Amino acid sequence: MFYIIGLGLCDEKDITVRGLEAVKSSTRVYLEAYTSILMVQKDRLEAFYGKDLIVADRDMVETQSDEILAGADTGNVSLLVVGDPLGATTHTDIVLRARALGIPVRIINNASIMNAVGVCGLQLYNFGQTVSLPFFTETWKPDSWYRRIKENLDIGLHTLVLLDIKVKEQSEENLARGRKIYEPPRYMSIPTAISQLLEVESTRGEGALDPDKTLAIALSRVGGHPPGDQPQSTDGETIVSGTLAELAAAPPGVYGQPLHSLVIVGKRLHYLEVDYAGEWARNKQNWRSVAENVYGCTLE
Amino acid sequence: MFYIIGLGLCDEKDITVRGLEAVKSSTRVYLEAYTSILMVQKDRLEAFYGKDLIVADRDMVETQSDEILAGADTGNVSLLVVGDPLGATTHTDIVLRARALGIPVRIINNASIMNAVGVCGLQLYNFGQTVSLPFFTETWKPDSWYRRIKENLDIGLHTLVLLDIKVKEQSEENLARGRKIYEPPRYMSIPTAISQLLEVESTRGEGALDPDKTLAIALSRVGGHPPGDQPQSTDGETIVSGTLAELAAAPPGVYGQPLHSLVIVGKRLHYLEVDYAGEWARNKQNWRSVAENVYGCTLE
Repeated sequence: MFYIIGLGLCDEKDITVRGLEAVKSSTRVYLEAYTSILMVQKDRLEAFYGKDLIVADRDMVETQSDEILAGADTGNVSLLVVGDPLGATTHTDIVLRARALGIPVRIINNASIMNAVGVCGLQLYNFGQTVSLPFFTETWKPDSWYRRIKENLDIGLHTLVLLDIKVKEQSEENLARGRKIYEPPRYMSIPTAISQLLEVESTRGEGALDPDKTLAIALSRVGGHPPGDQPQSTDGETIVSGTLAELAAAPPGVYGQPLHSLVIVGKRLHYLEVDYAGEWARNKQNWRSVAENVYGCTLE
Repeated sequence: MFYIIGLGLCDEKDITVRGLEAVKSSTRVYLEAYTSILMVQKDRLEAFYGKDLIVADRDMVETQSDEILAGADTGNVSLLVVGDPLGATTHTDIVLRARALGIPVRIINNASIMNAVGVCGLQLYNFGQTVSLPFFTETWKPDSWYRRIKENLDIGLHTLVLLDIKVKEQSEENLARGRKIYEPPRYMSIPTAISQLLEVESTRGEGALDPDKTLAIALSRVGGHPPGDQPQSTDGETIVSGTLAELAAAPPGVYGQPLHSLVIVGKRLHYLEVDYAGEWARNKQNWRSVAENVYGCTLE
């Protein structure tokens, strides 16, 4: 059997009991290490699972799938994926390859940002399409996400904005010289994300986003549990709500370590949701005022 | 600490290791038993967790939250929820109540249908808002979901349609006489769902749905793992794809036991997705033909 196992969002303890059993039954266990990151290091996973993990980068999952699948017809092989297994296309590829080889595949689901975003208190039913926001460079500022956010907002829906992660990037020089030297990983922060959102808004001027009239919720380390489960630790999940301008102006310490995601709030907003997410507002009075006066939400 | 713990989708082994530790540390453990169902009975959960479970129905979670929260300021209390904890509004209520009482709350995430729907092979990024389809009666045929499906389709997005569940319903007579006698649970099937979709399409005539031109994917027991993990068992997850007419015409045995969900496929469709979900097509040739000729998908 070829298992593709979701690890959930935080650390070694977020695997399911079913997933853990599959790992322990496997002769080889691969750890997919590019579409997202866990909040812990590989050695901690290895110690907990009692198994060595083989790190599988993008290249390997895409080009060496036969190697990964070897032996999965007679024994068990597992591929561990942060979050839920079927968020990224590349896993579709390897499942298609397994099918072609006649190898049975089993998916073991887990939480991913796509459903765990519910912790912000907005109904998942009222989210539209999810968008990814890539890092801008001087010369490359892709903005197809803008139209999608606007499509969502036009029908009252919220948008989950996934912020870019750059891991195993090479500098232009190293790439040109064929040197496999990688830059340190980079994770987009909330203020960078908002600055890019507003830059495109001001270029396109379609009025989808407004610094003072658009509400948003910044999510850091969703599903994160601080060591020892101390509720006051800053390493766990952090949620901050406010207008885009308020969130952009917050000091970086407010958001802390990666990963960060952002929710753009649509008009389909219930007063209980305003209360719930208002708990984390930079400015509680302004949060309620914008919800009432701009979003047209009737508060109790 | 008040823990709200997602159980995932299938059985006792879909809890996370973190969730299991929280259950074992709790003095009281409630099992929320109304917004969805697991595929196993309460006693199997109790045996596995080594804990008695207190069943909490809708009434109890909504009206007796103080009783549920009692003692969570000094010890641990857990509320178990099928899927992920924050899909349903009622859990927002109890979190707000806990906050008001100064009780710390921790959410332990898990898979839910909202992200596990990715097993159908369509990119989660391209899903729009999710809709719920209620059972029609002779006199009550709510259809606000139709506009939402159309909004999604108009911008090329897929729609996850959650099919109605009726548990703890009373007959009109028993309700009138105040007798707490409940009808057997009812779960909407794929053919019933499609018949309701097409009934409203023919009434409203806006052309969102077409029996022969709209592709859909029927999902049964998503995340389900057959006993003993035998891949051929019919009790596990089942996926069937086809046009609405093809899915409606399939014999019930094709879908098997509840729960069922339905995905209405939007135009934002990649040929790899057509291949992937085509594996489960009622008629593979027609699946590809509609994808190519109606959806405009360029197949390899």
